[in-house]
Amino acid sequence: MSPVNKPVNVGIVGLGTVGGGALNLLRENAAELSRRTGRDIVVSHVGVRRARPDLKLDGITVSTDIFAVVRDPAVDIVVEVIGGTTTARDIVLQAIASGKHVVTANKALLAEHGNEIFAAAEQQGVYVAFEAAVAGGVPIIKVLREGLAANRVEWLAGIINGTGNFILTEMREKGREFGDVLAEAQALGYAEADPTFDVEGIDAAHKLTILASLAFGIPLQFARAYTEGITRLTREDVSYAEELGFRIKHLGVARRTAEGIELRVHPTLIPADRLIANVNGVKNAVLVQSDPVGATLYYGAGAGAGPTASAVVADIVDVVRSLTAESAPNVPHLAFMPHAIADTPILPIDAVVTAYYLRLQAEDKPGVLAEVTRILSSRGISIEAIVQKPSLDDGGSVPVIILTKPVQERDMNSAIAELGALGDIAGPVTRIRMETLA
Amino acid sequence: MSPVNKPVNVGIVGLGTVGGGALNLLRENAAELSRRTGRDIVVSHVGVRRARPDLKLDGITVSTDIFAVVRDPAVDIVVEVIGGTTTARDIVLQAIASGKHVVTANKALLAEHGNEIFAAAEQQGVYVAFEAAVAGGVPIIKVLREGLAANRVEWLAGIINGTGNFILTEMREKGREFGDVLAEAQALGYAEADPTFDVEGIDAAHKLTILASLAFGIPLQFARAYTEGITRLTREDVSYAEELGFRIKHLGVARRTAEGIELRVHPTLIPADRLIANVNGVKNAVLVQSDPVGATLYYGAGAGAGPTASAVVADIVDVVRSLTAESAPNVPHLAFMPHAIADTPILPIDAVVTAYYLRLQAEDKPGVLAEVTRILSSRGISIEAIVQKPSLDDGGSVPVIILTKPVQERDMNSAIAELGALGDIAGPVTRIRMETLA
Repeated sequence: MSPVNKPVNVGIVGLGTVGGGALNLLRENAAELSRRTGRDIVVSHVGVRRARPDLKLDGITVSTDIFAVVRDPAVDIVVEVIGGTTTARDIVLQAIASGKHVVTANKALLAEHGNEIFAAAEQQGVYVAFEAAVAGGVPIIKVLREGLAANRVEWLAGIINGTGNFILTEMREKGREFGDVLAEAQALGYAEADPTFDVEGIDAAHKLTILASLAFGIPLQFARAYTEGITRLTREDVSYAEELGFRIKHLGVARRTAEGIELRVHPTLIPADRLIANVNGVKNAVLVQSDPVGATLYYGAGAGAGPTASAVVADIVDVVRSLTAESAPNVPHLAFMPHAIADTPILPIDAVVTAYYLRLQAEDKPGVLAEVTRILSSRGISIEAIVQKPSLDDGGSVPVIILTKPVQERDMNSAIAELGALGDIAGPVTRIRMETLA
Repeated sequence: MSPVNKPVNVGIVGLGTVGGGALNLLRENAAELSRRTGRDIVVSHVGVRRARPDLKLDGITVSTDIFAVVRDPAVDIVVEVIGGTTTARDIVLQAIASGKHVVTANKALLAEHGNEIFAAAEQQGVYVAFEAAVAGGVPIIKVLREGLAANRVEWLAGIINGTGNFILTEMREKGREFGDVLAEAQALGYAEADPTFDVEGIDAAHKLTILASLAFGIPLQFARAYTEGITRLTREDVSYAEELGFRIKHLGVARRTAEGIELRVHPTLIPADRLIANVNGVKNAVLVQSDPVGATLYYGAGAGAGPTASAVVADIVDVVRSLTAESAPNVPHLAFMPHAIADTPILPIDAVVTAYYLRLQAEDKPGVLAEVTRILSSRGISIEAIVQKPSLDDGGSVPVIILTKPVQERDMNSAIAELGALGDIAGPVTRIRMETLA
């Protein structure tokens, strides 16, 4: 660990929010980073498809052919922050093939092509670091891969999409409707012009896929994740949940069961007094239940230039510390050794067992509740609580909220189908899964 | 990272709660640990001063001369979990001198002798890992040293003594007095027979000393930490704080200022809606404010056999992964390279600036409050809020609560001395520091 060592050259591919943030951070904190690593870390080459006159790039080679960064023999570490899963995949695989270490913030790329990428990296003896891919600046990747390495993870539950959490927080705190808040989030820049990835849970499912792989030592299996968004949540459901002592959060849940691993993203009622229920606005948090440590929680900013750059540069520090030891990388990418990755099955969503919040619009007349409870009971579904609310529309029907005990999803689906067909039930039955997180 | 490698031999010195927990965990999770490291990790030698027939030690060499573990040439990693700062220091220094890596949970040892120990380890090219020394199973050491490596830490605030937090939680939730809850905590095994280290803040100051060193790149300086316990807190103060929207937590606070670094453990009023204000019972949490990631929080069990063993074994995994790479250790013990440790001064407590909660018992007659506010104002102390409470004792005096704006501690001390000398103020003035943690 001699203080005298030649500088490490970093090439950055993409200078958007994350790339620009990483560039700035590497320059502003250069002295501190040298104190931490014993090396000077220099951005020597950036690849941008269009020139960026707003950034001071003195002394840095700028290529509009972004593959030139990967071909540059002086570059030791390639930072891939262009996003997407096509060109980004080519950049990363070519960097690996050239024997360069890679740092990426690209959750979609890893969730969909991670197995191929990590296998290539193992083959070449290089490292692909990806702390920024999940929960922004919260070092949850390192926690799962190293900090909790002695633990057997039982389950984890995360608020891992800041846009969705901002929307749910506004709906709860201000009684606003989903579409109204989404429009504001777009205006504030929290949500993309096309918000599908955020509000339909795809972004969260990408991240959950990565977390589950690290937690359980399984391959990345994005295609098997169950994904349900928050677009159909109403302010009434948010408010009824609150009255019953719950909050609705858009959670990614991965759980080890005897039959396989649950991998699911959906709106979830959780008890309001849980710490994670009090994670508001654009913040992220991941709650991990593992043995022997028990419940631990990791909280912070999940997006934005600064937090994401924090994670990208932490990865660079890790790689530089490893380079300085002149050793092969010694921490397996996915927490477990490649030969020890397990083939534990992912459970289909209809085999998952959870409790449920149901809301149905029932005719206000005798016998309806008896019929509803009979249908649930015929499938072995026990009721935890049932509340009839005042009519919202001065019509003849009233909202009925039912909290059930845990039941397998296929039984609940069948019950809901039968409930929806009842003449005295108006419109579709709303159902939201519940987790105690205990 | 070949799957075929010879086993790594671990020697454990001390088989109390933590040592026994680590032994069990290494055995129970042996298969998972091999999946994570590519090596078998075997406990080959334990040192216990007295025989422990309750533990199954088949196949393990047992020595009642605990130094025999350190002398055993087959042992690769020595786990020091006997506690204390004398024999433990000898064990650790001898292990280092023998070229063995060390894992320790001993915060007192590191806070008081860490500079000597880490210098010896650097010299020998071995690693001294200490995740279990702070916040039990929460991997806060790794977070500060690696996960937040790109950040400049501005301040951190931690609930890092579970016993103290249990007592404060009970006082608040059930309106109980300190002594009453302490007796229960001792009966439950949360508090030692001699609770001094916990309730006087010494244990928290040991841990804060370590966190501050990692956060700011400074030497360990336990002797300069300001330490104030929770023994003088009353249920009235807990209750008044609550009414004003605050909770009282026993915090360790380390903050970078232009003049130096604050290093202080004391009861603190914090806004009740902060996430860390809702960390209850024996749980620990550390809130870190750093640039560019912003606020991040780490929460979990801070003590107990399982959580502490989780951290000890995570350290063993780190060392084994590093051994397997056949490299010198590549992460500096205290987050920054030894030559880059800074000599930033630690601020004396009377130079620290905080807001204050004051409680004084005033005669219920005209002019007293005017006199009190004059004394504060004469030292430039502004009042944020002032509340007169009903008399507690049907006597002539009433409790007056004052929340001040931030002021340097030496000015507050001088004001309190003058307040205490007023004829119309009965008994000592209670003062508790406040932090917004914003």
